[in-house]
Amino acid sequence: MTVSIGANERLDDLQIRGLYIIQRPDLFCFGTDAVVLSDFVRAGEEEKVLDLGTGNGIIPLLLSAKTKARHFTGIELQEESAALARRSIELNTLTDRIDVINGDIREAHCHIAPGAYQVIVTNPPYIKQGSGLCREDAKGIARHELKITLRELMEETGKLLIAKGRLYMVHRPQRLTEIMSEMRRVHMEPKRIRFVHPFADKEAALVLIEGAKEGQPGMIVEQPLILHEAPGVYTAEARRIYGLD
Amino acid sequence: MTVSIGANERLDDLQIRGLYIIQRPDLFCFGTDAVVLSDFVRAGEEEKVLDLGTGNGIIPLLLSAKTKARHFTGIELQEESAALARRSIELNTLTDRIDVINGDIREAHCHIAPGAYQVIVTNPPYIKQGSGLCREDAKGIARHELKITLRELMEETGKLLIAKGRLYMVHRPQRLTEIMSEMRRVHMEPKRIRFVHPFADKEAALVLIEGAKEGQPGMIVEQPLILHEAPGVYTAEARRIYGLD
Repeated sequence: MTVSIGANERLDDLQIRGLYIIQRPDLFCFGTDAVVLSDFVRAGEEEKVLDLGTGNGIIPLLLSAKTKARHFTGIELQEESAALARRSIELNTLTDRIDVINGDIREAHCHIAPGAYQVIVTNPPYIKQGSGLCREDAKGIARHELKITLRELMEETGKLLIAKGRLYMVHRPQRLTEIMSEMRRVHMEPKRIRFVHPFADKEAALVLIEGAKEGQPGMIVEQPLILHEAPGVYTAEARRIYGLD
Repeated sequence: MTVSIGANERLDDLQIRGLYIIQRPDLFCFGTDAVVLSDFVRAGEEEKVLDLGTGNGIIPLLLSAKTKARHFTGIELQEESAALARRSIELNTLTDRIDVINGDIREAHCHIAPGAYQVIVTNPPYIKQGSGLCREDAKGIARHELKITLRELMEETGKLLIAKGRLYMVHRPQRLTEIMSEMRRVHMEPKRIRFVHPFADKEAALVLIEGAKEGQPGMIVEQPLILHEAPGVYTAEARRIYGLD
């Protein structure tokens, strides 16, 4: 199939199973967080996966290659990002396995039946409202909690997940206590955590969390994910995750 | 000074500033957790430190060498352990800097003024009641929550710490969500966390947490502490912490 790429767009190789993604540098382009989250997610053959705030569709695209999950739905508030995601899905001939809804996550339960999903993934805005200046443009909305807060995101997750269903989230370690507290508020128990460090001797820059709805207390903290051995040199695991080997 | 060591006792070199500790193998002997916790604690010259459940006094002994804190008090429920701790303090001529109270942590606020301490440290029993068989002997009481629960420990900590005072605790990562939730319940905010992994590619075995009473939300996850490079071979950082270099 051919695809036309606009002057303000670029086509990026996802380094896995020949997948490509259309990105627009003036909107939000994916980063390390989406890639490491996709590596952290577990989804089985019969499972349906929902991505809350899918942006240009990076997470369902990667998960279509990294898991055997039956179907992926992405919800995206911003119309331009949702349109971009749909074009990437067509480009990769994945329209039978991924669809995108253009809408507000906070209203998802109005359209989707309770407990409809076995797996929810999300790479939400990390920054609390009132923490620093922020323009309400495409990038601002993706990074700051302008259109949805962590609490609202967890409340919606609690409604859409089936009992024992799993949430996979990437976030900033700075907010870990709040994340755990908001998860428990909607009966979601943290079960597996992995911290991502840029170097072995640096603080964690990201946290990956798996939660289980109605899960029992008790979790594991996995081996740390270290991204670089030296400046500009990826570790073996980062190379595997980025598909560079 | 001379010291008499009983037939059921042994004298262990703490590998720091010529300190020794008297231990009894039939009671609870210190492990990696006490050593890594002592390395994690920050205490300034003018600060008074309280150790909840001091056992044979290992933590105040180590902290007397590793920090400049003015004074340490250890509380220990078990009379034999408290007596052992006092003898080690005498042996190291630290009676002016460390004292030991034989009593119940849950009643500490009856004897100690509210907010009397700037720093509290604790290496509490890790195992919840009802999780596995347990004899109510010296080791059972040190390992299982037979005589104090995490909630009771946090409640007491909240009473004895001054506002902005710090708690330093070592625990099992499995209980991290509950730990954070119990800390917040008494207005103690997790501020700094470090995970301890036996090897770089293994799950965390211990978690070190610093909390601040009435602290602002927001924390850091420090670089992981990896103990072994290979079976039987410590990492450079573990060697430094154990005083082996």
